[in-house]
Amino acid sequence: MSSTRDQIIETTCILLEAQGYHATGLNQIIAKSGSPKGSLYYYFPQGKEELTAEAIARSGRIVERNIRAGLANNKEPAEAIANFVRSIAQAVESSSFSAGGPLTTVALETVNSSERLNLVCREAYGWLRDAFAEKLVAGGYTPERATRLATFIVSVIEGGIILSRTNHSGDPLRHVADELGDYLRAASNTETRVQ
Amino acid sequence: MSSTRDQIIETTCILLEAQGYHATGLNQIIAKSGSPKGSLYYYFPQGKEELTAEAIARSGRIVERNIRAGLANNKEPAEAIANFVRSIAQAVESSSFSAGGPLTTVALETVNSSERLNLVCREAYGWLRDAFAEKLVAGGYTPERATRLATFIVSVIEGGIILSRTNHSGDPLRHVADELGDYLRAASNTETRVQ
Repeated sequence: MSSTRDQIIETTCILLEAQGYHATGLNQIIAKSGSPKGSLYYYFPQGKEELTAEAIARSGRIVERNIRAGLANNKEPAEAIANFVRSIAQAVESSSFSAGGPLTTVALETVNSSERLNLVCREAYGWLRDAFAEKLVAGGYTPERATRLATFIVSVIEGGIILSRTNHSGDPLRHVADELGDYLRAASNTETRVQ
Repeated sequence: MSSTRDQIIETTCILLEAQGYHATGLNQIIAKSGSPKGSLYYYFPQGKEELTAEAIARSGRIVERNIRAGLANNKEPAEAIANFVRSIAQAVESSSFSAGGPLTTVALETVNSSERLNLVCREAYGWLRDAFAEKLVAGGYTPERATRLATFIVSVIEGGIILSRTNHSGDPLRHVADELGDYLRAASNTETRVQ
């Protein structure tokens, strides 16, 4: 894969995460990525929508990998997930609140305005949900219960990121981590778990 | 209060919710609200940022009122909150997924680009959190515990709205409602509750 193409996509991921789809212009992507203008149209002949679809898919895969890697650090789903959310709080703080939830702004901006971008956002959120669900299944939950819980987990993390970024503080995400850990520990003691 | 001014703010609320800050132009607001261009600058001499700050504050107060009204339908916080989230699922579906979370897109778009808009989003999320927290306190939780739980509740609702809008389905919010109801019922049986 071309490193110029990669560089364009990576720059686009960062800008979309920090400011959203509509605020991100092709000229800004060219300037920040240090690529010649011709290369952007060479690699992405359909322009901004095509490039954004690639960037969202890449961001989704990166987040999915981060979830799987983070959750592998603890055998117990409740601890693993709570600790993973705490690590997001730190990452959001380290980015000065410009990073976290790389799909969210684009997802909301394009719900009804771009079918292509809506579908890629939908697919990417599915990858995140499935990464959590697999951890829960490995921890003894039924697949159906795990999928529902994973939807809840993705929701609360997305919302916690919004509150942490808006409040310029990792605290909302840390509260979310504590509550989510409590909930999952309680859930693991009920009959909904297989083992 | 002038009805022209009101109409401009209401139109702005709808457009911000459906498409975000950067996609919403003053010309679109003028066209959709049916107001003469001069009136927009008459009422909002500082332009789009000033108008958006007013619109976000208005949306925040409307959501806060809806939360309080919705939660008043059940005495028990767990039932009241789960049913309120189910009503959001219906509202998001009825809007064809263009409505729900009127603060979110603007909040994320302006985290670091507009201090004025960041502060009004932060304040508005605080109103929503406090509306949930007061219901929890009335249900017997300590104020400190209620505030933390309310942060969790706002997070999961915000995230559930994102997933429901992106997936063009109320189901993620209905899953969230079920899980949240379970969690709050479990929490109300622990020593963290006063009564």
